[in-house]
Amino acid sequence: MLDLIEQTNITKAEAEEELTGMQNEIIDLANGIKSAKIPVIITIDGWGAAGKGSQIAKLIKYMDPRFYNVEPIRIPNAPEKRKPWMHRYWTKLPKQGEFLILDGSWFSDTVKSYMHGSITKDQYKARIDDINVMERQLHDDGYLIIKLFLHITQEEQKKRLKKLAADEYTSWRVDEQDFINNKNYDKIFKRYEKTLELTNTDAAPWHIIAANDRISAQLEIMRTVTEALKGACDAKEKGVPYFIPAEYPPIKSVPTKYPLIKTKKLASVDMDKSLTDEEYRRKLKKYQNRLFELQNMCYQRKIPVIVAYEGWDAGGKGGNIKRVASALDPRGYEVKPIAAPEPSELARHYLWRFWTRLENDGHFTIFDRTWYGRVMVEPIEGFTPKKRADMAYDEMNEFEYQLTEWGAVVIKFWINIDKDEQYRRFKERENTPSKQWKITDEDWRNREKWDQYEKAVDRMIKLTSTEFAPWTVIEGNDKKYARIKALKTICDRLEKRLGEEL
Amino acid sequence: MLDLIEQTNITKAEAEEELTGMQNEIIDLANGIKSAKIPVIITIDGWGAAGKGSQIAKLIKYMDPRFYNVEPIRIPNAPEKRKPWMHRYWTKLPKQGEFLILDGSWFSDTVKSYMHGSITKDQYKARIDDINVMERQLHDDGYLIIKLFLHITQEEQKKRLKKLAADEYTSWRVDEQDFINNKNYDKIFKRYEKTLELTNTDAAPWHIIAANDRISAQLEIMRTVTEALKGACDAKEKGVPYFIPAEYPPIKSVPTKYPLIKTKKLASVDMDKSLTDEEYRRKLKKYQNRLFELQNMCYQRKIPVIVAYEGWDAGGKGGNIKRVASALDPRGYEVKPIAAPEPSELARHYLWRFWTRLENDGHFTIFDRTWYGRVMVEPIEGFTPKKRADMAYDEMNEFEYQLTEWGAVVIKFWINIDKDEQYRRFKERENTPSKQWKITDEDWRNREKWDQYEKAVDRMIKLTSTEFAPWTVIEGNDKKYARIKALKTICDRLEKRLGEEL
Repeated sequence: MLDLIEQTNITKAEAEEELTGMQNEIIDLANGIKSAKIPVIITIDGWGAAGKGSQIAKLIKYMDPRFYNVEPIRIPNAPEKRKPWMHRYWTKLPKQGEFLILDGSWFSDTVKSYMHGSITKDQYKARIDDINVMERQLHDDGYLIIKLFLHITQEEQKKRLKKLAADEYTSWRVDEQDFINNKNYDKIFKRYEKTLELTNTDAAPWHIIAANDRISAQLEIMRTVTEALKGACDAKEKGVPYFIPAEYPPIKSVPTKYPLIKTKKLASVDMDKSLTDEEYRRKLKKYQNRLFELQNMCYQRKIPVIVAYEGWDAGGKGGNIKRVASALDPRGYEVKPIAAPEPSELARHYLWRFWTRLENDGHFTIFDRTWYGRVMVEPIEGFTPKKRADMAYDEMNEFEYQLTEWGAVVIKFWINIDKDEQYRRFKERENTPSKQWKITDEDWRNREKWDQYEKAVDRMIKLTSTEFAPWTVIEGNDKKYARIKALKTICDRLEKRLGEEL
Repeated sequence: MLDLIEQTNITKAEAEEELTGMQNEIIDLANGIKSAKIPVIITIDGWGAAGKGSQIAKLIKYMDPRFYNVEPIRIPNAPEKRKPWMHRYWTKLPKQGEFLILDGSWFSDTVKSYMHGSITKDQYKARIDDINVMERQLHDDGYLIIKLFLHITQEEQKKRLKKLAADEYTSWRVDEQDFINNKNYDKIFKRYEKTLELTNTDAAPWHIIAANDRISAQLEIMRTVTEALKGACDAKEKGVPYFIPAEYPPIKSVPTKYPLIKTKKLASVDMDKSLTDEEYRRKLKKYQNRLFELQNMCYQRKIPVIVAYEGWDAGGKGGNIKRVASALDPRGYEVKPIAAPEPSELARHYLWRFWTRLENDGHFTIFDRTWYGRVMVEPIEGFTPKKRADMAYDEMNEFEYQLTEWGAVVIKFWINIDKDEQYRRFKERENTPSKQWKITDEDWRNREKWDQYEKAVDRMIKLTSTEFAPWTVIEGNDKKYARIKALKTICDRLEKRLGEEL
């Protein structure tokens, strides 16, 4: 993709005239993006000294600074290293109608990490997949991603580095490594080219900008960006929900990417399982002690643990979580209750609020309700179109796969009770003053849709029981049994994982 | 405060019996806190090896883990060092009805930093003030703060350290420094005692827990916490708005703490100031270039810059901010538009959403509307009781003082236009299709309350024009004049600050 540096034949004066004409166009387009509520990500990568910073400054000069954010991407700092590598990109996602402009991106991050030897070849390959997955996920959610690569020749780079080093105001921006990189231009060239090809997708194609000449580069950037913004506004205006262009992507109703484990339907779960008080006390002590030890080992080896709780209303999630939590060192976990999304959450990709809630490696993140609301309450209550929700099975498998890549153990529970048991518990809540806050009209309304939910749960369990993040259905009519099964499942999974480590 | 370690005369069996009886009490109280929407902060400080971790585990054992968060406080990491020192505490604030439990706190943070020589005596003293200010601010907003100090003797500490070091599972928790600290017990004792005294306030009194004996310490903690929770629930039930106990604090209607600059009323501002197009172009170029240079210097010296914009609707804030922003390196600033608070923001202290929006040192944070909404729109529209809003003048001065302590230059603009000019601009917006999104019925409604707002603005400017963070009223009828005045004011303030540095 980098084989040719073409410069436009345009004169400087002509270029400047065209750029002046574009000032109002970009202001109008940015307003259009705002009203169409399209979130935009522009990434600017390229060679050192290719002029990324000054091109960004020119690009945003006429835009409203309240609606964009420019973020330089550097080597990850210590806290960033304790999260999945894509975490710092996810957390920065713009809201609908706003611009995120990245000076450097996941692309440079990956190329540089590999060239510096801080990731292996396999990790490099895995990151390419991660990039394509993230870009596709964002695109499918209506994000417009514009990726620019500023390309200069070896001679031009050398000239610029020398000039920067000679000027007292800019010399601090250049160091010896930059000159070494210039000497290794050919080697880096090959890696850039390869990586550009591997990440050049329909969802987020690359735009190579010939940047030896600054003004024609600026013109090319402006043309590329305005064209992309225009395309997005037009597509949105045509009323495509979630801005899915006609030709891409085909909406997939079933995931195909990861092998799935065979699962059972809820109707076939044995709901009679129970424990005596004595068995419960004995096993509770045993597994809680064991879990505490395992947490210590995970902490020391920096293994992140994600425990995701879903289940019927009044299924006993709270009490179950409590038994898990009380076994743990409280400094090493956090429980994240998931309620209806807030405006700032609704204005971003639905996985954003889960990415931003991840605790550090070595810690437990326990979700009380999860991202699976996407395929249960959201389509059933009409918050998300069914077609869009259907795309989520794959997206969640991808999300959990990325958590696993980070090193996480991902444990998912569906706490199952039958309809009679739920009725009994609802009534008990209504009749117990201290529990009345736990029961609302909404719970009764949801109950009326039991069959719809059961169908959705069966489908969810079928389509998202991957080998790396399988569902565990917990027989919950007997709370004691359910608690022990959750504790034991967590212990087993951690033991298995720690065993693999040794 | 630490002169005596008293152990209760209770036997182990009696203590355990009392503790068992308290299990249900703490569950009920936590539910009460949840329904009363009281945010609770419990800090646990004390000697090394005093048992902070295990006491926290016992304290929360019966609480619902969805509603508390335990955070260990360690030496600040690199990103934390780029914010004000209190930033990491503010960002962790619990929501109403939830618990934040800190293992270590701003107290230990300060004592240890001083003992290790990482802050000077003056900085230590300043931090004591900061602590008392923050605790009082939180208390005044309805936070319940329970501060526990676990006290053990030198002999007991030595015994525990030896035991920890001898056990293979716990030896990693002890290092040489712990034994050195044990030898220096007397010296540390004096500093703890002094600091405890200096931070023992009505808003957040200390509870010293004699912790040589673990079980009686646990009992004492449980008694202290349950009593405090009970008191808070009772006070709230009596209907005190914002949980201000009768005896504390007296609501202050004017700040007394910082000397104020003499200011003028809006009515006396000369609204005829203007610039010709030619003057405007020349000065715009001059000050934008100058600002770019100054930003560079601030970046290199890690000076944070806070620019706060307030002004009449249609006053021209957006265009003004644009001229400032477009002069800056886009990687070094962020504009924060402030809209109505979201649920998660309303559930915390009103300054929380401003603390959490601060950029790193060396960067510009530009607020488009600010914390001053507290004394303008909030009381006028009835979102905040007037009495509560009146307390905010002092709180904002304190907030800005803490920003200044961090090293920030705090610049505040009121963009002033007269009533006729606003009418003209509203009409223009209504008649220009591309500007219609900028004008709403709310703008017209606000306009009807012009006199009320003018009075509030006059009062705000009078009461919050401190020497360290003065208001600049900008004559805004002529947008060109207004933009140049804002740019020049920022340049002057930065030059002054940089001059002081040299």
